[in-house]
Amino acid sequence: MMQLGRYQPPSRQTVIYGQPVAQALPQVLSEHWVTQAVLVTNTSLTQPGGFSEQIQQVLADRFRNIVKGIRENTPREDVVRIAAALRSKGMEAVVALGGGSVVEAAKAARICVTNNVRDAADLDRLLTATTAAPPRPYLISIPTTLSAAEYTPDACVTDERTGVKHVFHHPDLAPDVVILDPAMTLLTPQRLWLSTGVRAINHAVETWCAMQPTPYSDATSLYAARTLFRTLPQSKTAPDDLEIRLACQIGSWMSIQGVTIGVSQGASHGIGQALSSIMGMAPGITSCVMLPHVLRFNAPVNGERQKALSEAAGRAGRPLSDVVEEIVAELGLPSRLRDAGVAEEMLPTIAEAALKNPRIKANPRPVEGERDMLAILEAAW
Amino acid sequence: MMQLGRYQPPSRQTVIYGQPVAQALPQVLSEHWVTQAVLVTNTSLTQPGGFSEQIQQVLADRFRNIVKGIRENTPREDVVRIAAALRSKGMEAVVALGGGSVVEAAKAARICVTNNVRDAADLDRLLTATTAAPPRPYLISIPTTLSAAEYTPDACVTDERTGVKHVFHHPDLAPDVVILDPAMTLLTPQRLWLSTGVRAINHAVETWCAMQPTPYSDATSLYAARTLFRTLPQSKTAPDDLEIRLACQIGSWMSIQGVTIGVSQGASHGIGQALSSIMGMAPGITSCVMLPHVLRFNAPVNGERQKALSEAAGRAGRPLSDVVEEIVAELGLPSRLRDAGVAEEMLPTIAEAALKNPRIKANPRPVEGERDMLAILEAAW
Repeated sequence: MMQLGRYQPPSRQTVIYGQPVAQALPQVLSEHWVTQAVLVTNTSLTQPGGFSEQIQQVLADRFRNIVKGIRENTPREDVVRIAAALRSKGMEAVVALGGGSVVEAAKAARICVTNNVRDAADLDRLLTATTAAPPRPYLISIPTTLSAAEYTPDACVTDERTGVKHVFHHPDLAPDVVILDPAMTLLTPQRLWLSTGVRAINHAVETWCAMQPTPYSDATSLYAARTLFRTLPQSKTAPDDLEIRLACQIGSWMSIQGVTIGVSQGASHGIGQALSSIMGMAPGITSCVMLPHVLRFNAPVNGERQKALSEAAGRAGRPLSDVVEEIVAELGLPSRLRDAGVAEEMLPTIAEAALKNPRIKANPRPVEGERDMLAILEAAW
Repeated sequence: MMQLGRYQPPSRQTVIYGQPVAQALPQVLSEHWVTQAVLVTNTSLTQPGGFSEQIQQVLADRFRNIVKGIRENTPREDVVRIAAALRSKGMEAVVALGGGSVVEAAKAARICVTNNVRDAADLDRLLTATTAAPPRPYLISIPTTLSAAEYTPDACVTDERTGVKHVFHHPDLAPDVVILDPAMTLLTPQRLWLSTGVRAINHAVETWCAMQPTPYSDATSLYAARTLFRTLPQSKTAPDDLEIRLACQIGSWMSIQGVTIGVSQGASHGIGQALSSIMGMAPGITSCVMLPHVLRFNAPVNGERQKALSEAAGRAGRPLSDVVEEIVAELGLPSRLRDAGVAEEMLPTIAEAALKNPRIKANPRPVEGERDMLAILEAAW
């Protein structure tokens, strides 16, 4: 069948890698003529010895304010707190230091500023992104995990009233600049570092296996898989090796490129979101548990295509589901729902929620209602 | 050694592939609100039964003018002719149908329009690109070869006064939209089709082997090499197979992505430009002849890295220089300078010119003056 598609590049985003943040950040700020900036980060990085102090020093006389304690799953209240800080007269940039939750909050805060959203409830207005004014001010992201949230034009934010996560979208929502300095990841707990790495593997694998991949997504997801399958186990063995950590960061960057140009991911992401919403499970852990079983479910329709990734992992000839399972085990991460705190009687509730997720429709093998969904979940349990 | 770099995406460019031009072109013109367009093409495509008539029909009442007979190597006079046609009041787009020379001419004509360049000599002004106003109007490219000139922000134009080729550059010089319809390549002479394909292999190989590759260039050049090594020989055997032709076009697209983000190519491109300038050799043929010998020369410094491409060609374990030579032979293309019309006594002149080319400095193994250069050329002779 002839390939068919339209490639439209995502928003322009600069990525600086391998240069220490103490050099890269002042340079970026000068280039953008930034004289006033707000720092946004989570609680652990503001502990004594955490990196937020270091970034504050690098910001030097450009530093104006810090918004600390951004929580997991990005509650709306945190978004609104950042937006309030950005409203100060002449604030020209926000620097986000942290994992996915921090950058998601900073992304969302920028369209709150430009659309005059002042409280959590008012965020509802931005759910129809077509009416939203472009985000401001500049956003510079210094990631500390491998979640790849830095690269997408979406912000996933939790509505505290209902516990539901909503996705806010604007074509220019992704950070303007991403600085990949592996030294900034050294305080990240190993389980978080490695499991977000498996999340990135999940991005690459489900993009590669997508129903409508593109030349760009194929090139980048294969690169990402080849890199991450090799470097994540290395990073576990040698956690202080910055070169390996940077290679993981680059793998994560490439893993999501297909998504940034609109390639849809499948059931592992769809079920993962249900597990996060209902069980509060971290996205990386959902990938550890679900990806092998989704691959096994899909193998009858795309087993041939999966082979290239087993090869990329240096394990040609073995089913990709087994390869992923083995790597998750090598990383010391959970591979069963029961080990991740899910009681068996929750499975029907999870199945029901997952079936409503739009990514299930994008799965290569159709998930035929509750029966199929429960079978996948039971296998993973 | 730690990877280090800055990724800045090139100008936004839309690529539509696999959709017939009769569908894709009207859609693009509507999206850009184009009501008046100029068609630019070469002599062969305006012959009876050539595709220019078909494109004129697709343009329908948007068609205003045609500039025919764009010559090889893009002489300045042709650029100026296009610019004159684009100056008509309210002209909103130029459609370039043809190979590298046609699209180079259309690219250059657009900055002539916006910088009020009205004759060939006046083009000198644009050699300092920093002062040039952005190109207009929209440029839509329908390529008929695999040269990949559609994707770069440079236009290579011959100064008829001296025979020297100059490169005009503007960050937004690349066409706004590229339409890859393999049916539009069916009239391209096979030797031109296949040799521009080897040119694209040369882009991918020298980008992969560059001294400072990037994650993006690695991902895309590996994809391109893997695709083209396989599909070019298939396209020779089955010249009417549109699916294979499209795969070649996609390989060509990916082959040049590293260059569009600033990765430098090496000696095969550098020597190739000297051969084109002095001997009038087609760029694709220079790649057929020179690439294997440049790879052999470079093998002592990057032989390990070259191995991945032999593997991508499905010929793991064989030196890449031999692999390229074999594929060029399978394609029925010349592999020696003497078979491409170069007399042995010209080699010193070519060596002298090549040594001045900036790409020689970007070659992975330093080319130490005339002795090294002559050795490469003699091996290729």
